[in-house]
Amino acid sequence: MRDILVVGSVALDTVRTPFGEVQEALGGSAVYFSLAASFFTQVKLVAVVGEDFPQEYIEFLKSRGIDLKGLKKIPGGKTFRWKGEYSYNLNEAKTIETQLNVFENFQPELPEDYKKSKYIFLANIDPGLQNKVLEQVKKPQLVVCDTMNYWIENKPEELEELLEKIDILVINEAETRQFSGEANLVKAAQKILSYGLSALIVKRGEYGALYFTDNSIFSAPGYPLEFVYDPTGAGDSFAGGFLGYLAKNGKVNERNIRQAIIFGSVLASFDVEDFSISRLKNLTYREIKKRFHAFKKLTHFEPV
Amino acid sequence: MRDILVVGSVALDTVRTPFGEVQEALGGSAVYFSLAASFFTQVKLVAVVGEDFPQEYIEFLKSRGIDLKGLKKIPGGKTFRWKGEYSYNLNEAKTIETQLNVFENFQPELPEDYKKSKYIFLANIDPGLQNKVLEQVKKPQLVVCDTMNYWIENKPEELEELLEKIDILVINEAETRQFSGEANLVKAAQKILSYGLSALIVKRGEYGALYFTDNSIFSAPGYPLEFVYDPTGAGDSFAGGFLGYLAKNGKVNERNIRQAIIFGSVLASFDVEDFSISRLKNLTYREIKKRFHAFKKLTHFEPV
Repeated sequence: MRDILVVGSVALDTVRTPFGEVQEALGGSAVYFSLAASFFTQVKLVAVVGEDFPQEYIEFLKSRGIDLKGLKKIPGGKTFRWKGEYSYNLNEAKTIETQLNVFENFQPELPEDYKKSKYIFLANIDPGLQNKVLEQVKKPQLVVCDTMNYWIENKPEELEELLEKIDILVINEAETRQFSGEANLVKAAQKILSYGLSALIVKRGEYGALYFTDNSIFSAPGYPLEFVYDPTGAGDSFAGGFLGYLAKNGKVNERNIRQAIIFGSVLASFDVEDFSISRLKNLTYREIKKRFHAFKKLTHFEPV
Repeated sequence: MRDILVVGSVALDTVRTPFGEVQEALGGSAVYFSLAASFFTQVKLVAVVGEDFPQEYIEFLKSRGIDLKGLKKIPGGKTFRWKGEYSYNLNEAKTIETQLNVFENFQPELPEDYKKSKYIFLANIDPGLQNKVLEQVKKPQLVVCDTMNYWIENKPEELEELLEKIDILVINEAETRQFSGEANLVKAAQKILSYGLSALIVKRGEYGALYFTDNSIFSAPGYPLEFVYDPTGAGDSFAGGFLGYLAKNGKVNERNIRQAIIFGSVLASFDVEDFSISRLKNLTYREIKKRFHAFKKLTHFEPV
């Protein structure tokens, strides 16, 4: 079994969009990633929660076959909370409040059997911690990493050090421009690749994703949805579908990576159809395959 | 020979971008459209210029086989001039100055042999005039039409009347939302289709284009370019490649329309690589075909 190790956040999210609101709902990068990837393979999760973290969420994650040996519960601690809002332009979240709580002193420690994981997703946390996770794992096959504007601005050296050790970086369009200092996306991607990555995936929200290597580009569309309720977790759901498919398949080559990007896009497109993890909760593998085919139909044209 | 009738503007453009500047260069919607379409079929152009319009531009357009019987030269008149600027975000032009000049009293009159044209492009002019053009043509096979925010705001009734008579509307994303009053693009497209169109093409700049009918959606990517010098004319070059390929091919069906959208995207991607019509001027059909194949490679993934 090719399982995946994910290190990231488990959170209680309060989110408001023009279409509704949820309070202290299950969220966090490691949660969205794990649920999306769980349709393809087993996930081993490393994160931290407080004593207030609802047991029903634990049970739910377990029911998806997610290994929670690495989920630390801090006695007396409070779980990480995020409060955000989206306007009709659903592409960008406005953070109302962040309570780091137990996440502030998060020191990822891998249970012994996690260290042999071959597929690794380092969700968006301090790049110093991401580096520390990598020091603990033995000969990974594929390391995929996310980051954000805050770390690009405040920890550029740790980030550059990290890029030499990982395979694929997944960031959004604005972060790509910010990190490279280049307005043109192709030049920006080339510059970031030169840190030693084998590939860069640029997430573009409703416009899809671009995959860059030194000698090829793949463009995946966003799925045109009639109803988008809550974009929270789309990026991590994308990463979960992407790495989940690659781990299940076992061969990392251009053909499979392109398919994996579509599976990532499929999972992201489902995630945004409801608040919190609600849509991922009632999603079936049959629906995932059906939407993969819909992506094919959406982009297909005959050669001339 | 299946030729195309285009009615639009012929202009002298002064354009500044972060990468350079041109003064009183050949421009206008009918010019970009005609040059792009001229790689596929003959174009019959209807527009107006002043006595100051350089003869060398006339000769150049003629050298591309463009029929200029419908290009009226007003004695003593001045040609339409547009002055615009782009910042590093090349997606949106800022108009510095518009001198309508002879374009202000433009009354499109079709030479007799133009009236039998089967393929028609109504570039962005007053929808009242677009309606008048349609009154003059006999049994067209395919009518494609562009418009802009100004007409959506100021002539909504003429525009709605027009939509009942044309086949395909080509507008940008913001105009799609504005015209429909819908933030969601899929719902916006459905609403606009309901005016009686057979299809709607939504241009999304560097993000490509979406093609909507009542029962299908096709997503074409933007071509990732390392150098974008001047986006002026991209939309009309798109329309020229699109309708040019369809007219050359002669069969309007979903298969050909999807290919035509890629050809449109190809022509737009070349247009922006240099100022004014410079890139379209030295472009070859061989390069067009090569980039069509590059679009295929850019979007291709295997089914599962």
